[in-house]
Amino acid sequence: MSIGVTATYRFPTHPEQQKQAEQYALGLTVGSWTDIGHLEQEQLKKHKGEVISVEKGEEKDTVKIFYPAANFSADLPAILTTVYGKLSFFEGYELIDLTFDNEVLSQFPGPRFGVKGIRETLEVHDRPLLMAIFKGVMGRDLSFFSEQLEDLLEGGIDLIKDDEILFENDLTPFYKRVTTAKGILDRHYEQTGHRALYAVNLSGKTNELHEKAERAAELGANALLFNVHAYGLDALQSLRENNNINLPIVAHSALSGVLAGQPVGGYSYSLLVGKMTRMAGGDFSLYPSPYGNVAISRNDALAIGQALTEENPFEKVFSVPSAGIHPGMVPQLLEDFGSESLVINAGGGIFGHPDGPVQGTKAFRAAIDASVKGISLEEAAATSEPLKRAIDQWGTAVSAKG
Amino acid sequence: MSIGVTATYRFPTHPEQQKQAEQYALGLTVGSWTDIGHLEQEQLKKHKGEVISVEKGEEKDTVKIFYPAANFSADLPAILTTVYGKLSFFEGYELIDLTFDNEVLSQFPGPRFGVKGIRETLEVHDRPLLMAIFKGVMGRDLSFFSEQLEDLLEGGIDLIKDDEILFENDLTPFYKRVTTAKGILDRHYEQTGHRALYAVNLSGKTNELHEKAERAAELGANALLFNVHAYGLDALQSLRENNNINLPIVAHSALSGVLAGQPVGGYSYSLLVGKMTRMAGGDFSLYPSPYGNVAISRNDALAIGQALTEENPFEKVFSVPSAGIHPGMVPQLLEDFGSESLVINAGGGIFGHPDGPVQGTKAFRAAIDASVKGISLEEAAATSEPLKRAIDQWGTAVSAKG
Repeated sequence: MSIGVTATYRFPTHPEQQKQAEQYALGLTVGSWTDIGHLEQEQLKKHKGEVISVEKGEEKDTVKIFYPAANFSADLPAILTTVYGKLSFFEGYELIDLTFDNEVLSQFPGPRFGVKGIRETLEVHDRPLLMAIFKGVMGRDLSFFSEQLEDLLEGGIDLIKDDEILFENDLTPFYKRVTTAKGILDRHYEQTGHRALYAVNLSGKTNELHEKAERAAELGANALLFNVHAYGLDALQSLRENNNINLPIVAHSALSGVLAGQPVGGYSYSLLVGKMTRMAGGDFSLYPSPYGNVAISRNDALAIGQALTEENPFEKVFSVPSAGIHPGMVPQLLEDFGSESLVINAGGGIFGHPDGPVQGTKAFRAAIDASVKGISLEEAAATSEPLKRAIDQWGTAVSAKG
Repeated sequence: MSIGVTATYRFPTHPEQQKQAEQYALGLTVGSWTDIGHLEQEQLKKHKGEVISVEKGEEKDTVKIFYPAANFSADLPAILTTVYGKLSFFEGYELIDLTFDNEVLSQFPGPRFGVKGIRETLEVHDRPLLMAIFKGVMGRDLSFFSEQLEDLLEGGIDLIKDDEILFENDLTPFYKRVTTAKGILDRHYEQTGHRALYAVNLSGKTNELHEKAERAAELGANALLFNVHAYGLDALQSLRENNNINLPIVAHSALSGVLAGQPVGGYSYSLLVGKMTRMAGGDFSLYPSPYGNVAISRNDALAIGQALTEENPFEKVFSVPSAGIHPGMVPQLLEDFGSESLVINAGGGIFGHPDGPVQGTKAFRAAIDASVKGISLEEAAATSEPLKRAIDQWGTAVSAKG
């Protein structure tokens, strides 16, 4: 068989699923087959889609169809339009995986830094990273922003990100956020030898993204936050492939609930927020944790984590399971996602600490340090007042969305 | 109240929907309200989201939330991330409409040509337009492509589009399709005085789209086909806003079934494929007809048609309800979508005509000419052999998806 992409679907059960799938494989490639002559068949052979397998199930059948690479350019818009452009209209038709032949995969960049590169930059190798989300910046000015950043750094944060709904605005303009944060991060490094990354929200019109990101890099930005699904995966890839940007990218999954969170159709999270986000060049993939109020299922979250780290030609990508995270959840996060590629990310879990964000950050760091050593939080809290206070507030019980 | 955008959602019923909605309105804007002082409330007032109304329903409640424009830049990625970025993760949360204050709306372009401009270009004012899709070009070369185009023109076609899954390829390269078609279309115009548009599939990487489209325009392309949802609505808008392109855009809805075709979540088709496609600058919106095998419901199709033509600051946009269209459906199409903004689009309904595509095109033209005059197809078939043969093959019965 030729080179190409194999799509794995879940289709509603159908008595003649094999036959139906063969019609799709033709319809989405050469169109027709039996009513054309032998010579034409020879000519069209390398363009013809093939049903690889049909596995019957109770409510859904799992169907694999192979699409030759001769039919599309090696970009996700072309590939997704081919394999799912039309089938997306059929109720209950899920696209759960894509398997790319290496010749196709090698035309994608993967992350520029990945887990390895980020850990080298931050010089942190033996524990999950800790990320914070600025809180309540909307409507406030740069002094408010600066104060939060100072507090987080004092507490020992590794990464700080904008809220994904903080866009260009008069009070905290994009470039000002970059230069203000750079001043604070540089001074912090000089004083403590501790580096941190600030992911500024790269937003605006598609056509302005590159210029903005390049200028941000020139001004000393050290990371970008990007709402991938507001633009499309290929826009992420284009940022990754621009060598004038050269910054780690936190790929935010906002809006992906439409695409992957549907009960009977759409993409799987592991494909969209895991595999394709990695291929396209995210260094971090931020998605709802299975524990908070904005939750995806634990199975989905674990599958994303696996897709971001499983063996393939690309560097591993950090999982950033987010929303509703407090220090009492750290052992569970470690158990679910492992230490190496995990970022523990909190907003309310830091700023809502009874003693404020400095202590809130310290509570997380204490929880992380204990957990990687296998020390229980209760035991660690005996020697960490911030952690004790956090546990008094939020407890240590974790319930995941099934 | 300040200037902004009002989102209309359908949320699963909830005993305290009002309270819950107010939490969202805060959470997606200033974050918190009751626990901040009066001075801060004054400062944050113009950024605060507001619940406009909650209308209780049986399975779903209709909730309207207002988001101040002060919080986002006037682009769809920022607006959609604000109003649906997080809420998209909640099961069964539908975004069915967005209402934009004029100050926001005026920052969007709408179509460059629209129904009016296209009709002036084609000099066709008194009937729906007829579009054909090239058939089976994948794996075939330019002579095959040319022959189909010649046949369609001979039959009296107004518009021809690439199949949306025809991408850059060696046999029919993008620029060659443009120049080949231009030669044929120019000659046809010289000989007959009849203009037609050919929409070439603008595909590839996001960052290459503009250069490709500009070059295509220079080479004499007269329309573009664009898989909007493979890239995002803002990518469509950026093409519309580029004055070096200056070509009508056929916005194809491939992949939008994921976003809008879900039984319990996602966007409404009228918002996604109707209102926002029009705002962003599509001249034509191509979507599944309610009659074919790749069908959306008749209600959804009609709602799209309405959103493309209802009174607003933008030019009207053509509806192109597609898939499974044959000449016998023309009266139903006219009844459902009206003559003015309708494009009748066929692939198999033209190429599958028993006497081939020239006669297939003529059959449609005869059906259209009769229908706008209120003459029945049976009556028209008495004086049109191509139409008679089409009706013998496909009949005139139409059943829509409910």
